[in-house]
Amino acid sequence: MTSKLAIGIDIGGTNSKFGIADRKGNIIAQSRIKTQQYSDYFSFIATLKKEIEQLHPIDDVIGIGVGAPNANYYKGTIVNPPNLPWKGVSRFAEEVEKVFGLKCVLTNDANAAALGEMVYGKAKNMKDFVVLTVGTGLGSGIVINGDVVYGKHGFAGELGHTLVSANGRHCACGKRGCLETYVSATGIRRTVYKLLADYTDPSMLRSISFDDLSTRTITEAAAKGDKIAIEAFKYTGRVLGMKLSDFVVHTDPEAIFLLGGLSKAGDHIFTPAQENMEKYLMPLFLDKKIQLQPSGLKDDDAPILGASSLVWKYLAGSAGES
Amino acid sequence: MTSKLAIGIDIGGTNSKFGIADRKGNIIAQSRIKTQQYSDYFSFIATLKKEIEQLHPIDDVIGIGVGAPNANYYKGTIVNPPNLPWKGVSRFAEEVEKVFGLKCVLTNDANAAALGEMVYGKAKNMKDFVVLTVGTGLGSGIVINGDVVYGKHGFAGELGHTLVSANGRHCACGKRGCLETYVSATGIRRTVYKLLADYTDPSMLRSISFDDLSTRTITEAAAKGDKIAIEAFKYTGRVLGMKLSDFVVHTDPEAIFLLGGLSKAGDHIFTPAQENMEKYLMPLFLDKKIQLQPSGLKDDDAPILGASSLVWKYLAGSAGES
Repeated sequence: MTSKLAIGIDIGGTNSKFGIADRKGNIIAQSRIKTQQYSDYFSFIATLKKEIEQLHPIDDVIGIGVGAPNANYYKGTIVNPPNLPWKGVSRFAEEVEKVFGLKCVLTNDANAAALGEMVYGKAKNMKDFVVLTVGTGLGSGIVINGDVVYGKHGFAGELGHTLVSANGRHCACGKRGCLETYVSATGIRRTVYKLLADYTDPSMLRSISFDDLSTRTITEAAAKGDKIAIEAFKYTGRVLGMKLSDFVVHTDPEAIFLLGGLSKAGDHIFTPAQENMEKYLMPLFLDKKIQLQPSGLKDDDAPILGASSLVWKYLAGSAGES
Repeated sequence: MTSKLAIGIDIGGTNSKFGIADRKGNIIAQSRIKTQQYSDYFSFIATLKKEIEQLHPIDDVIGIGVGAPNANYYKGTIVNPPNLPWKGVSRFAEEVEKVFGLKCVLTNDANAAALGEMVYGKAKNMKDFVVLTVGTGLGSGIVINGDVVYGKHGFAGELGHTLVSANGRHCACGKRGCLETYVSATGIRRTVYKLLADYTDPSMLRSISFDDLSTRTITEAAAKGDKIAIEAFKYTGRVLGMKLSDFVVHTDPEAIFLLGGLSKAGDHIFTPAQENMEKYLMPLFLDKKIQLQPSGLKDDDAPILGASSLVWKYLAGSAGES
């Protein structure tokens, strides 16, 4: 039997990444295009087809998985994505199937990340876990009994929009006090700026504008002993840990995985988050040793692997098991 | 084909209720015994057998469902229940099967209530919903894609122990600020006493001791325009609504059902809870019209029906479908 392959496409506000992966998670070939250059999704998909065929023949490809913001798994649509150039409802999966002549499954990027963890990462032998993707925002995929939770309307797992504080920070979703306004690349920048405003400690971060400040810069500052940076991570970890204690009593997961920029800060974020999760956790769960861990996928590979894992999970049938 | 029956047993700290129900939710016969009179679960089960056989012949019974505190569905055990006389691990389901010669399924009382709602109540055509049982404490059963969520260790759905306030009220679980310290029969009593301490308004509740105060009394006072009672419900509903907004973004349910003492307060609790859920809900979910509703089961019948629904869900096979 020839080795079967899957196409994974991750649609982002800036770049869309795509590649061809095998069942073991080796990415055979990959590339990217600029999402904003395509004013409609028809021309975007037509370009994808050309680009992918140039990368690698698609004869052995079983199907196509797509991770996208505001994706509806049930309908294969992308609905009013705030950061993509396509307004209204895009019947994306249907168009991909027409153009490529292959089956297509679409889900939101965080659900794809959760499937990627199960197919290729650290959750291969797990049936109950949560993945948090902490980038510009905070996405989440919840897996229960081996399946991603979609919910009644296909929108389950919006943990970035659980409430931290009723009168808290303004969120892009229109609410206030959402978790992602504290725990995300943007969230920790807001925390740094709050601390710089509140305290007089000298900090190397005082010379950097809000727009130029990155999680990496804050991590480097913390590593050098910068008090403001260290305190920003402690605060971020505390908020995350408190909400993790809620997530655990909800679905009783075996582990929680963190993926994306903030997770690269290592102990700066994992230590306070784990400590505070346990501090606020119902004692019944304490001896279960639920671990907050970095994802088993490399950040660079995760988007394509997450998307391609949809193929093995939903389209491959027995071929996906081998 | 003769009509098949199920035995339902609900084990409570004071009373244990049991009965025989048909597939439509008619309770053919029922009774109760005092849980505390049985120092071990062997004598408790032996008495149950005698009592149930006196109620009704068990020839047509398919199986036995048991709802109990601290129940482990996977193992059929009851583990260190704080309010039952049996310490350590009781291998309850195994003993029931031995004594009755019938299959037995055991789960916690709130999961049983969720199954009862699905088998007999308002959730017959739903696959994604949440049931909150608001009595002395706050229990919860979460149903996703037609199945109760048990989680990795069998303890999923402890929503009564999500965090309202880090430095909040002390909870019987050992933590502080748990939802059930605010939203439960005990929680609203605590709120009434807090309000009586903080304000000078006259109130008919000032003449009642903490021990004698009941949800019914507070409801009656609110109906008569008692300011303290009305404010206590508003506060309770606000806390509940805020946490409901978190529950919705977790699992995207079609509806949330309320069962138990507090739900009898009607609009006093449902109106502020629904309003605050929507106020704090991620806007994406607002047009989904997720309703907080009273359970479709009568409070008196719910424990036995919840327990017996386990039989139709897990033991009846095709007989359960008819």
